[in-house]
Amino acid sequence: MPELRKDPVIGRWIIISTERGKRPTDFIVEKDTIKGGFCPLCPGNENTTPPEVLSYRQSSPNPNRPGWTLRVVPNKYPALIIEGDINKEGEGIYDKMNGIGAHEVIIETPDHKEAFTHLPKERMIQVFWAVRDRILDLAKDPRFRYVMAFKNFGGAAGASLEHSHSQLIALPILPRMIVSELEGSLSYYKYKERCIFCDIIRQEINLGIRVVCQNEQFISITPWAPRSPFEMWILPKQHTSSYTSGDDASFAALTEIFSESMRRLNVCIPSVPYNFVLHTAPLRAQSLDHFHWHFEIMPKLTMIAGFEWGSGFYINSVPPEDAARFLRDAKLTI
Amino acid sequence: MPELRKDPVIGRWIIISTERGKRPTDFIVEKDTIKGGFCPLCPGNENTTPPEVLSYRQSSPNPNRPGWTLRVVPNKYPALIIEGDINKEGEGIYDKMNGIGAHEVIIETPDHKEAFTHLPKERMIQVFWAVRDRILDLAKDPRFRYVMAFKNFGGAAGASLEHSHSQLIALPILPRMIVSELEGSLSYYKYKERCIFCDIIRQEINLGIRVVCQNEQFISITPWAPRSPFEMWILPKQHTSSYTSGDDASFAALTEIFSESMRRLNVCIPSVPYNFVLHTAPLRAQSLDHFHWHFEIMPKLTMIAGFEWGSGFYINSVPPEDAARFLRDAKLTI
Repeated sequence: MPELRKDPVIGRWIIISTERGKRPTDFIVEKDTIKGGFCPLCPGNENTTPPEVLSYRQSSPNPNRPGWTLRVVPNKYPALIIEGDINKEGEGIYDKMNGIGAHEVIIETPDHKEAFTHLPKERMIQVFWAVRDRILDLAKDPRFRYVMAFKNFGGAAGASLEHSHSQLIALPILPRMIVSELEGSLSYYKYKERCIFCDIIRQEINLGIRVVCQNEQFISITPWAPRSPFEMWILPKQHTSSYTSGDDASFAALTEIFSESMRRLNVCIPSVPYNFVLHTAPLRAQSLDHFHWHFEIMPKLTMIAGFEWGSGFYINSVPPEDAARFLRDAKLTI
Repeated sequence: MPELRKDPVIGRWIIISTERGKRPTDFIVEKDTIKGGFCPLCPGNENTTPPEVLSYRQSSPNPNRPGWTLRVVPNKYPALIIEGDINKEGEGIYDKMNGIGAHEVIIETPDHKEAFTHLPKERMIQVFWAVRDRILDLAKDPRFRYVMAFKNFGGAAGASLEHSHSQLIALPILPRMIVSELEGSLSYYKYKERCIFCDIIRQEINLGIRVVCQNEQFISITPWAPRSPFEMWILPKQHTSSYTSGDDASFAALTEIFSESMRRLNVCIPSVPYNFVLHTAPLRAQSLDHFHWHFEIMPKLTMIAGFEWGSGFYINSVPPEDAARFLRDAKLTI
C-alpha cells in the first residue's frame, strides 16, 4: 500500500509508492553529457574568469594566479547583475523589479578531475568556509536579502562545467521556499514554543531508522517526506538559525558528516548526479528561535513531470527508512 | 538587464535572463528515448490493461474490445490505490495517511503514431470530454478531494509510453499548488472584490503582447512570470471556477484554442516534450468567485537544478512577450 506523507515544516505531501520497492542498483546513472575541452576553472586559466572575489592559497599571495586551493569568482554568465539600484515597478496588475543580484562560482579544487565527494576533509572544509565568507561579505550589501548557496553535480543535475564547483546567488527578495520554511516553522513555534527542526532531530536520534550518520555536533538523516529517493538533510544538533555563526570546530564537524554522507551515497549509487542547497536565515536576521539552518541534498534520480509540476506533490519509490539503511550499510573504503 | 517578475496569483518569482536572448531554434530537442515494442494501449491489446472505466466508440458497443476512439483505463502501476478507507495517523511529530486514490490513463487515440497536437478537433474534444466525465464520476467518491488531470509528452517530460495518453490522479487531499492558487486568488479577491484571473485576462486582451490566440470563449497567453520558455496558459474568458461546468459549445471553443496553441508551439519547436495540467476547483466545491479554472502548458526546455529546487525561483531565458510573438508568427500549415 502506498503512503502519503506530509513534510512537517512546509506541509508538502509526497507519495511513497512502495509497489516497486526499489533498491539502489535499480537506478541506472547515465553517462554524463557535460562536454570536455578547455576548462576556464583550471589553474593557469585564471584570466578567463572575472577577477576572483576570494581565494585560499597555499603559495603565491597574488590573486588571479595559480597557487590557490579554492577560488571564488563572479559567474561569467550571471543570472542577476551586480550593478545598479533596486527599482520596483508595476505593470498594471503585475509586479517586477530589475534583476539586481550577485552570482558567484566557488571553484572547489584546482584539480580538474577531483570530485567534491572525494575531497580530503581539510580541503572540503574550505568549501564551507568559502560559503560562510562570501555570505558574510554579500550581507554587507543592503540591496540583498538572501544568499542561496547550492551545487549542481553532473549534467543531469544541471551542471554545465565538469570541474568541481558550487554557486552562490544573492537575491534582493526572500525566495519562496525560504518563506515557506520560515512561516511553517514559525507556526509550529507559536503552537509548541519549540523549534520544529530540533523536534525532528530529537525524534530521529531516538528512532534511529532514518539516521545516515552523526557526530556530536551534526546529524545526517533521510527526511520523513523526501521528494527524491536518497534525499538527505544535514543539520546542526544544537539550535542555530544562521549558517554563518558557526565556529571552526563546528565547520570541521559539519565536514565530517557531509563527507561521510556523500561517500555513502556514492557507494550506493556510483556517480549519481545531485544537487545540494543551504537553507539558512535571511541576511542580517537576528538569531531566530523557530528556524534552524540545514543542508538538503537531492540525488537526481527521478523526473519532474506533469503531476509534480501541477500539484506540488512528489512521488518517491524509495521509503526514507530503506534509503537510510542502504546508506548506513554502504561499505566505505576510506 | 535581467528582470525579476512575480506571478500575481501565487507570488512565485522568476528571473527573466535576457542576457542570452534565445530564439526558438536555440532549443535543441533531443531524440526521444521512449522504447518501442509491444504497446498495451493499442487496439487489440485491450486485455493487457485493467478493464476500461470509460470509452467513446464509433462501432462495437462491447467494452474492452477494439472499435473505440478514446478509452480510459486504471493505471496498471498506480501511484495510489483505489481500495480501502482513508486512515490518517501520526508518527510522533509526523503525519501520514494511507495511499488511497485513483490513477487512470486516458488513451487519446487508437492510432499508435498519432500525436495529441495533431488530433483532428473532433477527436481532441473527446480528450476534454473524458477529463470532464471522469472528474464528475470520481467526484462521487467522498474520499477524494481533488482530481489532477495532466499529460506528459516525450521521454524528457516523463512519458514512459509512446502511444498518446494523458492521466488523472484522484487525491484524498488538496495539492499544495492548488492550495496556493486558491489562497492567492482569495487574498486578491478580498482586497479588490474581483477575480485575479479575470483581471489578468482583461489586461492581456488589452495589451495583446502576450496573447497567443483567442476566440470568443477562450484565450491562450504566455503568462507574465513563466517558469519555462514558451509556457502557455489557456483560460475561459468568462469567469468559471470549475472545469466540469462547461457545455458542449465551450468544450468545442476550448479545443479550437488548445489545438491552435499546441500546433503553434510545435511549429516553433518541433517535437518539443511538454507537460500540461488542469487547475480547477476542488471536487464538489460550490462555484467560487475568486478562482478561475485554466490549463498550464509547460514545454520541457530547461533543467530544474539546485537553485530552482532550493529557492522555488525559476530562471527563464525567453521573455513571454518574445515567446508569444514567435508563437503568433508561426506559420500553421493546417
